[in-house]
Amino acid sequence: MKTKAAVLHSAGKPFEIEELELDGPREGEVLIKYTAAGLCHSDLHLIDNDLVPRFPIVGGHEGAGVIEDVGPGVTKVKPGDHVVCSFIPNCGTCRYCATGRSNLCDMGATILDGGMPDGSFRFHRGGTDYGAMCMLGTFSERATISQHSVVKVDDWLPLETAVLVGCGVPTGWASANYAGGVRAGDTCVVYGIGGIGINAVQGAAHAGAANVIAVDPVAFKREKALELGATHAFASADEAAAKVAELTWGQMADQALITVGTVVEQVVTDAFNVIGKGGTVVITGLANPEKLTVHLSGGVMTLFEKTVKGTLFGSANPQYDIVRLLRLYQAGHVKLDELVTKRYSLEEVNEGYQDLRDGKNIRGVIMHSAD
Amino acid sequence: MKTKAAVLHSAGKPFEIEELELDGPREGEVLIKYTAAGLCHSDLHLIDNDLVPRFPIVGGHEGAGVIEDVGPGVTKVKPGDHVVCSFIPNCGTCRYCATGRSNLCDMGATILDGGMPDGSFRFHRGGTDYGAMCMLGTFSERATISQHSVVKVDDWLPLETAVLVGCGVPTGWASANYAGGVRAGDTCVVYGIGGIGINAVQGAAHAGAANVIAVDPVAFKREKALELGATHAFASADEAAAKVAELTWGQMADQALITVGTVVEQVVTDAFNVIGKGGTVVITGLANPEKLTVHLSGGVMTLFEKTVKGTLFGSANPQYDIVRLLRLYQAGHVKLDELVTKRYSLEEVNEGYQDLRDGKNIRGVIMHSAD
Amino acid sequence: MKTKAAVLHSAGKPFEIEELELDGPREGEVLIKYTAAGLCHSDLHLIDNDLVPRFPIVGGHEGAGVIEDVGPGVTKVKPGDHVVCSFIPNCGTCRYCATGRSNLCDMGATILDGGMPDGSFRFHRGGTDYGAMCMLGTFSERATISQHSVVKVDDWLPLETAVLVGCGVPTGWASANYAGGVRAGDTCVVYGIGGIGINAVQGAAHAGAANVIAVDPVAFKREKALELGATHAFASADEAAAKVAELTWGQMADQALITVGTVVEQVVTDAFNVIGKGGTVVITGLANPEKLTVHLSGGVMTLFEKTVKGTLFGSANPQYDIVRLLRLYQAGHVKLDELVTKRYSLEEVNEGYQDLRDGKNIRGVIMHSAD
Repeated sequence: MKTKAAVLHSAGKPFEIEELELDGPREGEVLIKYTAAGLCHSDLHLIDNDLVPRFPIVGGHEGAGVIEDVGPGVTKVKPGDHVVCSFIPNCGTCRYCATGRSNLCDMGATILDGGMPDGSFRFHRGGTDYGAMCMLGTFSERATISQHSVVKVDDWLPLETAVLVGCGVPTGWASANYAGGVRAGDTCVVYGIGGIGINAVQGAAHAGAANVIAVDPVAFKREKALELGATHAFASADEAAAKVAELTWGQMADQALITVGTVVEQVVTDAFNVIGKGGTVVITGLANPEKLTVHLSGGVMTLFEKTVKGTLFGSANPQYDIVRLLRLYQAGHVKLDELVTKRYSLEEVNEGYQDLRDGKNIRGVIMHSAD
Repeated sequence: MKTKAAVLHSAGKPFEIEELELDGPREGEVLIKYTAAGLCHSDLHLIDNDLVPRFPIVGGHEGAGVIEDVGPGVTKVKPGDHVVCSFIPNCGTCRYCATGRSNLCDMGATILDGGMPDGSFRFHRGGTDYGAMCMLGTFSERATISQHSVVKVDDWLPLETAVLVGCGVPTGWASANYAGGVRAGDTCVVYGIGGIGINAVQGAAHAGAANVIAVDPVAFKREKALELGATHAFASADEAAAKVAELTWGQMADQALITVGTVVEQVVTDAFNVIGKGGTVVITGLANPEKLTVHLSGGVMTLFEKTVKGTLFGSANPQYDIVRLLRLYQAGHVKLDELVTKRYSLEEVNEGYQDLRDGKNIRGVIMHSAD
Repeated sequence: MKTKAAVLHSAGKPFEIEELELDGPREGEVLIKYTAAGLCHSDLHLIDNDLVPRFPIVGGHEGAGVIEDVGPGVTKVKPGDHVVCSFIPNCGTCRYCATGRSNLCDMGATILDGGMPDGSFRFHRGGTDYGAMCMLGTFSERATISQHSVVKVDDWLPLETAVLVGCGVPTGWASANYAGGVRAGDTCVVYGIGGIGINAVQGAAHAGAANVIAVDPVAFKREKALELGATHAFASADEAAAKVAELTWGQMADQALITVGTVVEQVVTDAFNVIGKGGTVVITGLANPEKLTVHLSGGVMTLFEKTVKGTLFGSANPQYDIVRLLRLYQAGHVKLDELVTKRYSLEEVNEGYQDLRDGKNIRGVIMHSAD
């Protein structure tokens, strides 16, 4: 089978559109026709050499589509089912899946290699194996992926909106509600209002926080944050910290959520200083794992009982929370339609990412051709 | 010193207005001029013989006022301070205060005797000692109470509104947010929309519940519930249960909060049946402690892992949550002004309670004379 | 294929040994050769009409053995693997499995029907379908069961000991550690020292409880409790309550775990009265779901903020905790060898259960023949 896909051959170079050969689904695998794919910052980390995958690799890890075929032993979905993809597969039995932490499933270990757990590949071209970002490769018209990478959703939902619940929405929403543990009446600061940050703002407001303070240098993003639940928005961390001191009578924030595109030492330090006694800093955004971006005073951490924690997928469970967030969207508690800034064709992938770099987009979405 | 007060001499008889002698504050005590007092259902439990205090007793346990004088060793407040009273004193040092459960402070053991912890009384008349409901007696113009029974609040707040945060508001709001553990996206049912129930509805909505279902036979109360955050309101438990099954695709509710004036077996059974696997029933309303109002199947409790728990003051901490809820009120997250249905003079106390029995009031408030 | 099994044809009659036909494994199913099966009280509930299954049914739900064959699409195990069975299948994807509550897996709904989720059966005799208790039927030499009902364990472990971790050990241990939330320094009372209760004692001691008070009328069981971690043991609830008051200076117990064979109203009331303010009663033992065995004062529950909750499998996760408890056993933290009172052949199943009724056994284990 043939499929058109946006591919990376190395860091520092843009996506290239190529036609690849695609194997059909083997044991426990499914063939998906992607309807839409979100332009998340994580794929830029591959171009910017923050994350080093196996090259060549088909980009895209936020995706939704329709199952066209299933291999033997597939129980989770059947042809015709509408699905949203999970960028971390959930085996359902490893220690982490079994204890409600399927965002940490052991199958996630190889998602940057782009192959199946047994190391084989389904994308090929001229004898070369092409990997699939996060075992998904949503920047391809079709892909053969694991049944553990898809979550069946209500089929009356528009897939070009449901796609957002594959990565950005749950990661942001859950950074507030799960990892951050925001509760009614709390004061929560969110650094970086992109595809994840806007949902951290939504999540904190949904949890009933009294003060949700958004920090982003881009005016358009500050407006969007105020529109979707922020009580205050500032261009700089210092301005935000001054307001937090005032709002909390000096007790400072309960949570600081770091959802910037690329995490650097300064924003972690700002977040650490904005929380009060017993407060929590959540690092959701990524950075090159070799960079020591957390450089803080252990003494202050001890004396003020501060917590600094990372979160993957906001510590949500793909199987449960993808369905749940879509139900909350239908009940009007979570906004999705307002998040999509612009839609692109597959060929316009590099243009879409340039808009992201230029701060023009909260979320850009690639619309795959219908056939 | 003289003070006018509404007094109960026995169960089954209405309040009587009498002029009492009032001792000044001794070691650790304060003299308070009550500004306002809430007409809570709990005082009716004394008349209806559900709770048996020491008679005679000055009624009223929801109160706010101004400190006029302090005894030796008082550190928490000074004359002129505005305070809201806590119907459970917080010593700050017992096992429960020290572990963040000051709603269970050991000093609470004697609140129905109406005297000071050492058994002495400050209200007298013709040689007879008069107790003070919950060591407060807010249906008196003035009272001498423990410093541990008052919480200093921002003095620009209108005391006739702040008074609500002495019992009804925190008890209801915290039944959802603390005892019930309502989280964003949950389905929560509230039985009984009085002075506490309306705040359980507010609390559940504030916590971000997807569905807040109010149950009350009185139409006026159902409308009030919909006004303050309920998504649905029904006259009967059966209608509510049918809607919950539909909204949750058969998984049923996450929490059921029982905030009726007097708890009976049927409402506990209804609540037990409306929650799903792993769900929680919270019993906030009171009943005669000798009545076995909880009559349920242990087998179902085990097989469906259901929880039934009681809560006092919603499991909130008076010292912290009284101040916090007033800050949330000022930030617009918690509604207070909309809760007061009618105000009464001290002399109209019985009329106020009749209106409560007749389902006319969400909350009636006694306004004490200014001098 | 033929297999010898102990079968129940109706309530009120003992097990009968019969030779049944056994179908091979279909899609997602495995053929297991049981090595050993625990004589748990739950099977007695079928004879005593507390739980009504579909008859005829092959008994036994605590089992361990070796996988002999697997059907198509089986990913969890392969022939030769050593497994301990879970009496609740874990699909890995339903709301409860996905959020770490796989003891409440939706697949558990039909475990008393004894068939596969699609309603078909694998045991037959003369045209009649025979069900399998909890989709396992461990009182049979062999069975065809779902792959979701088995947990792979380290194959150097003796299966006749590992079998205990299928039901009794985790249910008891987790009733203390998970459902009860026993923490170091707590005071915990355990009613009923059978196959589950002895492990609630172990679990509470393992969690570091200061006082672990065992209550059982049978002297042999009280000695066993003291041997495995109880600090005190009494024949009656009243004696235990007196000691708890003394040990806790009147604050009473933090947890009361009900692990009697059949729960009755009295023991729930005893447990409710032995816990202090903010305490928790956990109902682990079963009873006929139509019997209202929980008959308590809502008023006391509210005024003392008490909690009563049911727990299934102790609120543990079979996939994770079966492996974990066996690792704890190997590390010497959890005792298993000391739990087995007597071993029986399959033909002695009724004798084994009589010993259980007579209070002779902590745990009896059926040893299946080797071939």
